[in-house]
Amino acid sequence: MKIVKGFQANSNSNYQLNVIDLMKHAIRNYSRQEIASRNLDGTLFRYTYSDAYERMQRLANSLESIGIKVGDRIGVIAWNTYQHFEIYFGLPGMGAVMVSLNLRLAPQDLAHVINHSGIKYLIIDEDLIQVVESVIPLCKGLLGYIIITHKPLNEVETILKPIYSYEDLLMEALPNYEWLNLDENSAYAACYTTGTTGKPKGVYYSHRNVYLQAIMFATHFSMSVNDIIFQLVPMFHVLGWSKPQAATYVGAKLIFSGKWNLNDLEELTNIFVQEKVTASAAVPAVFMAMLEFIRKMEQKPDLTGARLICGGSEPPIALMRGFWDETGAEIIHSYGSTEAMAITTLNIFKPWLETELSEEELWNLKKKQGIIVSGLEIKIVDKNGKELPHDGKSSGEILLKGPWITENYFNAPQTVDSFTERGYFKTGDAGCLDSEGYLKITDRIKDVIKSGGEWISSIDMENSLMSHSNILEAAVVGIFHPKWDERPLALVVLREENKLTSKEEIRKHLAKSFAKWQIPDAIIFVDKIPRTSVGKLDKKRIRIEYGGQYTKN
Amino acid sequence: MKIVKGFQANSNSNYQLNVIDLMKHAIRNYSRQEIASRNLDGTLFRYTYSDAYERMQRLANSLESIGIKVGDRIGVIAWNTYQHFEIYFGLPGMGAVMVSLNLRLAPQDLAHVINHSGIKYLIIDEDLIQVVESVIPLCKGLLGYIIITHKPLNEVETILKPIYSYEDLLMEALPNYEWLNLDENSAYAACYTTGTTGKPKGVYYSHRNVYLQAIMFATHFSMSVNDIIFQLVPMFHVLGWSKPQAATYVGAKLIFSGKWNLNDLEELTNIFVQEKVTASAAVPAVFMAMLEFIRKMEQKPDLTGARLICGGSEPPIALMRGFWDETGAEIIHSYGSTEAMAITTLNIFKPWLETELSEEELWNLKKKQGIIVSGLEIKIVDKNGKELPHDGKSSGEILLKGPWITENYFNAPQTVDSFTERGYFKTGDAGCLDSEGYLKITDRIKDVIKSGGEWISSIDMENSLMSHSNILEAAVVGIFHPKWDERPLALVVLREENKLTSKEEIRKHLAKSFAKWQIPDAIIFVDKIPRTSVGKLDKKRIRIEYGGQYTKN
Repeated sequence: MKIVKGFQANSNSNYQLNVIDLMKHAIRNYSRQEIASRNLDGTLFRYTYSDAYERMQRLANSLESIGIKVGDRIGVIAWNTYQHFEIYFGLPGMGAVMVSLNLRLAPQDLAHVINHSGIKYLIIDEDLIQVVESVIPLCKGLLGYIIITHKPLNEVETILKPIYSYEDLLMEALPNYEWLNLDENSAYAACYTTGTTGKPKGVYYSHRNVYLQAIMFATHFSMSVNDIIFQLVPMFHVLGWSKPQAATYVGAKLIFSGKWNLNDLEELTNIFVQEKVTASAAVPAVFMAMLEFIRKMEQKPDLTGARLICGGSEPPIALMRGFWDETGAEIIHSYGSTEAMAITTLNIFKPWLETELSEEELWNLKKKQGIIVSGLEIKIVDKNGKELPHDGKSSGEILLKGPWITENYFNAPQTVDSFTERGYFKTGDAGCLDSEGYLKITDRIKDVIKSGGEWISSIDMENSLMSHSNILEAAVVGIFHPKWDERPLALVVLREENKLTSKEEIRKHLAKSFAKWQIPDAIIFVDKIPRTSVGKLDKKRIRIEYGGQYTKN
Repeated sequence: MKIVKGFQANSNSNYQLNVIDLMKHAIRNYSRQEIASRNLDGTLFRYTYSDAYERMQRLANSLESIGIKVGDRIGVIAWNTYQHFEIYFGLPGMGAVMVSLNLRLAPQDLAHVINHSGIKYLIIDEDLIQVVESVIPLCKGLLGYIIITHKPLNEVETILKPIYSYEDLLMEALPNYEWLNLDENSAYAACYTTGTTGKPKGVYYSHRNVYLQAIMFATHFSMSVNDIIFQLVPMFHVLGWSKPQAATYVGAKLIFSGKWNLNDLEELTNIFVQEKVTASAAVPAVFMAMLEFIRKMEQKPDLTGARLICGGSEPPIALMRGFWDETGAEIIHSYGSTEAMAITTLNIFKPWLETELSEEELWNLKKKQGIIVSGLEIKIVDKNGKELPHDGKSSGEILLKGPWITENYFNAPQTVDSFTERGYFKTGDAGCLDSEGYLKITDRIKDVIKSGGEWISSIDMENSLMSHSNILEAAVVGIFHPKWDERPLALVVLREENKLTSKEEIRKHLAKSFAKWQIPDAIIFVDKIPRTSVGKLDKKRIRIEYGGQYTKN
């Protein structure tokens, strides 16, 4: 859309929005605010914004000292820790680009991200060294590895070299750093999305994007210095769903969850209660497990006023009511994507709806994805790109545009179809908007499976299956799973001469291209795969016939 | 400061921040939210954001229909009304610049603003026509006048021509307007400051400036759709101290105060209570009068949770405690200026200070100007420009810089000294910052008088006095006034041969260059004006000797 020049304002057009400013101003006002971080042994490390800021400056000096320059891409593969938080500011503050690496990617995909982004150095949590070692043979251009560890460097076992100790580097560096005045369109970080078919695609967020998104989120989520924010969402996930930066903007207390999985939820729930957390975010599966644990507690914790953002998939009403009834905490449904920097909607009520709607209607309203945050433009379009009315019924593809919505994937000309000519991102999700502005996702257009908040491409998996010489035909669909919302299910037609091929062999074959968690639990041998009249895989019918696979006893 | 280019982010660098987007998104989510506006007869006009938005679109079409083009400057001289709110969005949305005119300016100053900004059309509240008529002979380039009135145009008595009716224009215009995609550095509005010596100086705010300031303010002031905001601050005052835009960002209810003065405070207080206002702003004199009225009410209103921003000068503890004790409303001290787009500080507590400080200490803390909002840079410097520590003691001139702080006055090269080479605005105020980031104003460096939140230049007034042929010497100082905080006091030495000149004659002389309210109530004839050893006016001694003029019975 053409940009029209008006009367030039004299006020100030050169001031650059740099993410490090969020931290500088937090230090001026909230230097004593606490930051906690869960250690591997379950204890909490505690320090202050002021302590963190000194280490961010040391980090910036360290990175320069080993030769990292403005514009260099640096990969980060780490758990939710205070060091990861330091990297969030110290690394982009000195002008480098933080490439957030999803530690759950399959090796080929991880290597692709490293090579495609041109990463020079990797910063790695010690216990993720093996993940990196397994992809190194596929990577090029890596100059060195910074290990986050408290061990002496010579006790770190690895084939990686050269290696540096994050802590040693910081200790040797100067505690003051003169932050650069970066052009605000310089990249702050990159996240690669694996949402659809093909290789992971890069979204490079500028300092301006991240700055604007942080203050938008702080406002919409009513964040303040009184908040205590539990960072559960992995920080490699679209910048941790925006909370670390927004929390810094308002000087809120932050608690980092450390390394965790669903088995740690009892411990995490205890932290939640003891630290009087007021805000957090996670996928439904996590909050489900947390609620289960809370239900078993003799004395139910009072979490009145806590806001829990729930995204990745639709939170069941039972989950939302459960939290409300047991603890007083409110689950807030949210919707987003890597391309939209995580927070696109938040389900927030308006005073008039609270008056007009019955309790039941309000609970149903809470299931919707919520209202599109201010700052973003949305269109719901039909197959021909025609805009549909906001009537709560007309469903079409959701297109998004805004100050922090990507307009293209980095260096991926083949993906031009993911964006419209007018700069809208095609989300691949179908939905409808009602007259009050609440979005409801009705379908997924792109054929992907969302398992525990993570994407699996069914088409890629079908292609992989069919590349096996014993397989004649294959179809992969996402079906309901009580814990992961969706899990892949594979239907396989073996060639007549290979009827003895085992499921184990097929799993091994898939493991060459997919991470372990992506591989279908259920692989079913069939004689024929349902197809539509025009010969396409009839996934609708497959889901009807086999949809109960993960709910059967 | 040099801007360093990092790695170019691919995400989105072309998306322009336009103020109209705040309204477009409010309409998507909050179209049913109410807006109220006090009529001249004291009743409340009510409509919705949706109604307002249609009229904004009609306004944009109207302005185009009479020949107004992108970049044209359009003056607005109006009370706090819903039409003024419509102009806030409709006018800059079609690319013109809204020049906010302070209806209290002296005719020469008002004419200077009109001529200096090159205003083509004026939008005028009907009962302010006389203000405009009085300055027209001094103005050039005006093409027409749009009158805000509900009367038929032929019943409007005025010498202005051609005139248009705001309401007729809107009625005749189309209700849909395709908003421009303006370069974000295009001017949204201009305010002229009369804060110091010389002619009023123009600050032209860009769309980007206003957009960023609005969301910053919404976050820092914890605004939400649940807020009911009473717009008491005149909307010609630095864009109404930012509230209309921030309220729109979050979809809060707005109430416009209409035309009012201190005599209307009983009526305004009643509106405040009846409409359950949650947020407002005013100078201390206004809240003082409001508190006086509340004290006389039989049943004290419960305003628990209401936040009242108090700026312009320091609110006395008695005022803050009074509101707290009588109503539960909290007075929040704020500091700002036209050059800083009003909100530079907000006095907000932090959880740890609420624990550590005694009640008495907290009340004293509330007297400080507050913490500098995130996004702004501050320096406290000594006479040589050397930065002073943030120790709560070291006092120096306050310098400000940030995304919405002006870096120069429009077309006023003689004012270059008001800014540093590194782009800081020199506020002319002296203050100190403590380690928690709270600012305390300790003195005023520029020699101006602040009366009821409005500026009067003592140097200009001295010059005017001394231009009178009968006057030998004159000094003007601001001294304490129980209602207006400060009022000017003039000491005058008459020439020997003119000892019979009356105060009345002097007032008449001043009225040629100053507005009525700016003229000193106390003019004292003296034989000699105290001077310092180097011959400068000894204003300190004058204040000591005559400081009680407005408190004597």
